[in-house]
Amino acid sequence: MEVVESVNHDQKVAGRLIGRLWRWLKALPGKLMGKVVEFSWKIIKLGQDDPRRVIHSLKVGLALSLVSMLYYYQPLYDNFGVSAMWAVMTVVVVFEFSVGATLGKGLNRGLATLCAGALGIGAHHLADLSGHIGEPILLGVFVFLQAAASTFIRFFPKVKARYDYGLLIFILTFALVSVSGFREDEILEFAHKRLSTVIIGGSACVIISILICPVWAGEDLHNLIAANLEKLGNFLEGFGNEYFTSENGDNEDAKSFMQEHISVLNSKNSEESLANFAKWEPGHGRFQFRHPWNHYLQLGTLTRQCAYRIDALNGYLNTTQIQTSPEIRNKIEEMCTKMSMESGKALKELAMAMKKMTHPSSADSHIQNSKFATKNLDSLLKSGIWDDTDLLAVVPLATVASLLIEVVNCTEKISESVYELAAMVNFRTPEATVSPEKSELGPSDGMVDCPGHVVVTVNDDESSNRANNIPENGLINTSGTVAPGRHNLGV
Amino acid sequence: MEVVESVNHDQKVAGRLIGRLWRWLKALPGKLMGKVVEFSWKIIKLGQDDPRRVIHSLKVGLALSLVSMLYYYQPLYDNFGVSAMWAVMTVVVVFEFSVGATLGKGLNRGLATLCAGALGIGAHHLADLSGHIGEPILLGVFVFLQAAASTFIRFFPKVKARYDYGLLIFILTFALVSVSGFREDEILEFAHKRLSTVIIGGSACVIISILICPVWAGEDLHNLIAANLEKLGNFLEGFGNEYFTSENGDNEDAKSFMQEHISVLNSKNSEESLANFAKWEPGHGRFQFRHPWNHYLQLGTLTRQCAYRIDALNGYLNTTQIQTSPEIRNKIEEMCTKMSMESGKALKELAMAMKKMTHPSSADSHIQNSKFATKNLDSLLKSGIWDDTDLLAVVPLATVASLLIEVVNCTEKISESVYELAAMVNFRTPEATVSPEKSELGPSDGMVDCPGHVVVTVNDDESSNRANNIPENGLINTSGTVAPGRHNLGV
Repeated sequence: MEVVESVNHDQKVAGRLIGRLWRWLKALPGKLMGKVVEFSWKIIKLGQDDPRRVIHSLKVGLALSLVSMLYYYQPLYDNFGVSAMWAVMTVVVVFEFSVGATLGKGLNRGLATLCAGALGIGAHHLADLSGHIGEPILLGVFVFLQAAASTFIRFFPKVKARYDYGLLIFILTFALVSVSGFREDEILEFAHKRLSTVIIGGSACVIISILICPVWAGEDLHNLIAANLEKLGNFLEGFGNEYFTSENGDNEDAKSFMQEHISVLNSKNSEESLANFAKWEPGHGRFQFRHPWNHYLQLGTLTRQCAYRIDALNGYLNTTQIQTSPEIRNKIEEMCTKMSMESGKALKELAMAMKKMTHPSSADSHIQNSKFATKNLDSLLKSGIWDDTDLLAVVPLATVASLLIEVVNCTEKISESVYELAAMVNFRTPEATVSPEKSELGPSDGMVDCPGHVVVTVNDDESSNRANNIPENGLINTSGTVAPGRHNLGV
Repeated sequence: MEVVESVNHDQKVAGRLIGRLWRWLKALPGKLMGKVVEFSWKIIKLGQDDPRRVIHSLKVGLALSLVSMLYYYQPLYDNFGVSAMWAVMTVVVVFEFSVGATLGKGLNRGLATLCAGALGIGAHHLADLSGHIGEPILLGVFVFLQAAASTFIRFFPKVKARYDYGLLIFILTFALVSVSGFREDEILEFAHKRLSTVIIGGSACVIISILICPVWAGEDLHNLIAANLEKLGNFLEGFGNEYFTSENGDNEDAKSFMQEHISVLNSKNSEESLANFAKWEPGHGRFQFRHPWNHYLQLGTLTRQCAYRIDALNGYLNTTQIQTSPEIRNKIEEMCTKMSMESGKALKELAMAMKKMTHPSSADSHIQNSKFATKNLDSLLKSGIWDDTDLLAVVPLATVASLLIEVVNCTEKISESVYELAAMVNFRTPEATVSPEKSELGPSDGMVDCPGHVVVTVNDDESSNRANNIPENGLINTSGTVAPGRHNLGV
């Protein structure tokens, strides 16, 4: 009985296992199909996000096939032989996405091969003098010293940023040339072949990279900075529109713009690497050879500072419910909305000016309006009409206002930096000059009983003042006592 | 006369030029000496900042010298011949600063060489079938397609983070093997030699990297996160001490700690690359093989959010003068100082717990104290004793308080994240358990007329609650109506 039961049990287990396997096998094609479809969609999306990626891939394929000709075409192969391999390697390693990166790597590789080749031959000859036993020892010592020293120099931040690859190739070529010399008699020919094939491979990369749909790192950097400014501008504009008007507007669609600024917070590394690549690039399009790329980094830092303030504002609004009586809301809110909207518009105008490379004078009126709203808010609080309201009700709004003032200050600094850039590279003046409109939030609005009247004087030579970095105290003559850049009020 | 004058003039000019050249030449050794001394100091400083750099340089030199033995030692050379070159190349390219990076590159290179070698041989055989004219064309097409596809796949962010180098080597090896096959008859031997020399070079790197003073990326990441927490803690502690106590304390020395948090703002990239390297590393010291490295990234994100708030606070304080009557200052300031100091201490305790890998319970009391100070501030404002004071005087302090509340919230989130980490990897309990002290800012201080008494109950199972991520509403029983995490007050 026991044996029969055990056999039955085994059969059942086996049957269940086979059944499971069968179901798994039946489901497999569907699952695989799903994976393949998913993967295909990912590939299509990757290409659609930036079609230059597809072109770059084809360019690499083309360069590699062309250089492979060194193998197929008999006269070329007679010349280079197995060294043709170096050309293939150079193409694979040097061909980068942007022209600047490709040029930088190509030049690094070419120059490092030249220097290290020469030094390697020298080291080989020196070691040759010391006899058959001393030669490998001396060569080993040379290789050790050279590798250790070059590796250490790679730690210098400035070297790492621009010449890291060159030093790598320097170590490599020196070791290969000096050590190969121990075995090969025609070391000069070896070094010469290596150099010429590297030059062939590098030139193929650079030429294809520049001639076929070039991707310029400098242009990318320029566009990245402009796009970041625009994102912050979108946030501020959207914030002014959405936040105050619809109190409980928790709909996710309207708040998607609230997340855009997050990518700005972490843009430092991409900006720095783009600037490093851009410095290798020749003049192209609207950019000269010695375009002030470092100024873009400065502008990027200011943009990020503004983004930090905006993130703090966003965080504060997400954790705090503002509960105020309607009449107070309306008064302070109007100022805050104005400040936010005008700063946002100013940033978007600056972004537009960057994109078109026109003089950023169209942002001035918005910046003045936002500063003006700040001063009105100041007066509003000074006026003392709040004495009978609840302190608790004002504090959250005042905090938002304080943070917005910080944002307005940052916007002003960004504008100054864009002006400096415009002066450096001679942005052209826009075709239809937008004259700064009369400030929309003047004392004539009748809202505020200002203790000191505010007069806006727009000088004709305003833009030249800005461009020459003269403090703009002369632009807005206030009879108030607000020191520029340092509000003694705190809101 | 004229001729004589002209000759005199020429002589004078020549004399002046020679004089200038002489002075330049005389100054040259001094200048050169100065440069050399400056450069030497830089080198010494670079080594002192992180002595592991010197050791790493020596390790690279050693590995390269060892692998060069393949050339010098006759039996080895008989085996590999010129292919020994690949071992040298592998060492130069694969040997990175940390074990994780070296292992990652080594494995990528080894596996890519294996796969691409096999595929390359297959492609060569396939092309061989199509006759002498068709062969180079078919090979060119294969190389083109493979290079284009692999280059495109490198754009996937996940692939780029971990397998970028592997794909590069895949393209390279496939092209070399398949194309070399057109010329070399013994293609199998070629591929085999390449693979074995790559393995020799890679193993040399990995072994030396692990055996001699290993630099673990995982440990670096762990320490980086702890150091960042400590920096923020220093800022908050120093801010509590310095800012309120000495109003015009503009001395730069005391404010140097104010700048430390800036490095935290931009730590994202180094954290991500360290985490990627750490994933390749085997278990080492206090870290298991599958240590939750991704959780460190989450902790890093929270730390950066806290740093953004702190930067906003710092920026606000730099542009705003707080002018308040002393009696108001004292009252709000005491709360703010408390909040700042206690958050700072909590962050430093968390950093210490991370460093020692002990259970972070010692931070609890500080976090409770800071939350407690927040609630007291809340009560203070609710109590209505401010009705007769100037609104303007309160607003800047209230803004600082609002920002500090954000910081307190962030600190709490960070603490929760550290607790999660502690539960994941079983941090050991500290030897002398620090029992959470009685909150120092209780209603018994007599400062505030709280509408609702606040009772602090510290449960024994507190830490297990935290570790299991149960909201700690049960920990602090307040009779107030403050909803957790969402202050309806706004300060």
